[in-house]
Amino acid sequence: MTSNSAASINGKENSLQAQTPAAELSTLLAGDMDNVNALIISEMQSDVALIPKLAGYLIAAGGKRVRPLLTLASASLFSKNIESSYGLAAAVEFIHTATLLHDDVVDGSEERRGQKAANLIFGNDTSVLVGDFLFSRAFQLMVKSGSIDVLRILSNASAVIAEGEVLQLQTQGDLSTNAQTYYKVIAAKTAELFAAACEIGPVIADKQEHAAAMRSYGYNLGMAFQIADDVLDYQGNSKDLGKNTGDDFHDHKVTLPVILAFEEGTEDEKEFWRRCFEKEDIHKGDLEHAYDLIQKYDTCSKALQIARNFSSEAKEALSAIETDTSILKTLENLPDYLVSRSS
Amino acid sequence: MTSNSAASINGKENSLQAQTPAAELSTLLAGDMDNVNALIISEMQSDVALIPKLAGYLIAAGGKRVRPLLTLASASLFSKNIESSYGLAAAVEFIHTATLLHDDVVDGSEERRGQKAANLIFGNDTSVLVGDFLFSRAFQLMVKSGSIDVLRILSNASAVIAEGEVLQLQTQGDLSTNAQTYYKVIAAKTAELFAAACEIGPVIADKQEHAAAMRSYGYNLGMAFQIADDVLDYQGNSKDLGKNTGDDFHDHKVTLPVILAFEEGTEDEKEFWRRCFEKEDIHKGDLEHAYDLIQKYDTCSKALQIARNFSSEAKEALSAIETDTSILKTLENLPDYLVSRSS
Repeated sequence: MTSNSAASINGKENSLQAQTPAAELSTLLAGDMDNVNALIISEMQSDVALIPKLAGYLIAAGGKRVRPLLTLASASLFSKNIESSYGLAAAVEFIHTATLLHDDVVDGSEERRGQKAANLIFGNDTSVLVGDFLFSRAFQLMVKSGSIDVLRILSNASAVIAEGEVLQLQTQGDLSTNAQTYYKVIAAKTAELFAAACEIGPVIADKQEHAAAMRSYGYNLGMAFQIADDVLDYQGNSKDLGKNTGDDFHDHKVTLPVILAFEEGTEDEKEFWRRCFEKEDIHKGDLEHAYDLIQKYDTCSKALQIARNFSSEAKEALSAIETDTSILKTLENLPDYLVSRSS
Repeated sequence: MTSNSAASINGKENSLQAQTPAAELSTLLAGDMDNVNALIISEMQSDVALIPKLAGYLIAAGGKRVRPLLTLASASLFSKNIESSYGLAAAVEFIHTATLLHDDVVDGSEERRGQKAANLIFGNDTSVLVGDFLFSRAFQLMVKSGSIDVLRILSNASAVIAEGEVLQLQTQGDLSTNAQTYYKVIAAKTAELFAAACEIGPVIADKQEHAAAMRSYGYNLGMAFQIADDVLDYQGNSKDLGKNTGDDFHDHKVTLPVILAFEEGTEDEKEFWRRCFEKEDIHKGDLEHAYDLIQKYDTCSKALQIARNFSSEAKEALSAIETDTSILKTLENLPDYLVSRSS
């Protein structure tokens, strides 16, 4: 990384060349990600035509590929043989894609990655089964890596993710969900796979002594990312970031800005939140009223402060890694950037 | 096994003590299966209450546990340390259970194992997610076994099963499905997991030289089993075997008795099959007419003859195994018994 690009990451320049840490990571690992993307395409093939058709629909729509990027980035910190992590980066993306497919069936989502959700085009049944295929394919890719430790990390992560999804379903529309339960859900749904992706790097390089630090980095990064994402959902100006503001409100997903506003609310306000989330009785103007209440108690700022704490933990975890590469510096800047998208 | 029970298996006695080979296998491995059942219960636990609730509902309903029994039986042929296969027997059952949960969502089934299908009680969303959990748990159990070869066998099997499910969805209600495509579907949906369950035994005992024979046994057993099962679905007298006659007809699943009757049918008869399967326009009396046509061309008998060929292949595969145990003898008798249920 040149000093110039380092400056852009730190946001000290406002030139056209300025890159966010996320974009910087993509640039630094562009060649490797091309190989991973090619692998993703070739591994989703099947004689059964519906499989590449549906998988291709979702995968071609893009997505940020944050998880495979983290897998590659972490691998690059501990080994020059980054090729050996390609299959695992693809496996991590397949687990994520399978989760998205099943998520959209469960949520009855209408949109994903800026296009119609796959289940609305191919049907819920196909989405369920192709998700199962991608999930199995992920394990086949892990087996090829030959590391039982990686298989342990990712099978644990998969079980935790599924538990988190069920817990989210259990707590949906339930305003007795407190912040602790919310953290548990997002830890399972989001932070766990970030943690696993980052933990793989030292493990396949046989540098187990760094596994806990990298896991902690990924976990805290994931927590910061998800809280910031949930805040974005209540920020009217976030359309251009690819989020549909108000989705969580309409899906009755109890997230941190709402939990904090409900806790501080008057009895009338609590009644309003209960009507929208528990009785699922939402009228025109309710989303705007929710915005007002969230602003009244400043709960987006409060949530972001909590996200910043996770962000600090993530950076702190990296301090144990004694290497001095552009990628490490970019990883250090990434958590604050993810939180700053919402502030 | 006493000579008395051997006689019962061979069907030469008709005493109250007479046992089918399936029951005989359960008896011979009863202690081990108790341990596997205990493991199944303990491994489906989770802090997220809905998971053991739904999984318990399906698992408590029983089922024949054919696949874990085969896993134990195969392991017992090659090692005295059968305990090391308990976790894998549970993993195989979890993969099967996850598949059933997703199957029922896809098929909109109303009944499973003689009770209301889980998705009708807990919702499709919970069934999808708990299926994902059980699937992940299966991989965690395999990781505990520490064998990358077993992980390869079962991750391949899982991918093949998912492909088979999608292929079945693609061919549903499509009468251009020929016997070859039908074999492909049942090979993937059923025979693959039977094959994997049987292959595990020699692999974990480090007797790879017997892996192909045991895999072939399981595969051909699975094919014979599924064809016989599909025949049962068109045999009016099979209520007492726990099958709901006519299910496949009403679900527009194109199985061997129908494929053969369609191929031999007159143009009028072909039109009848097309109306029922392709246009999904089924009237009162149609199932009975389907029975008549199947009887006219004797396609149940023809399908059973094909099942018997697979059954012979299964027995032939076992001839390479040089051990002389009761379990081996029972495994030899099992394929013919599974086919004879329908004849």
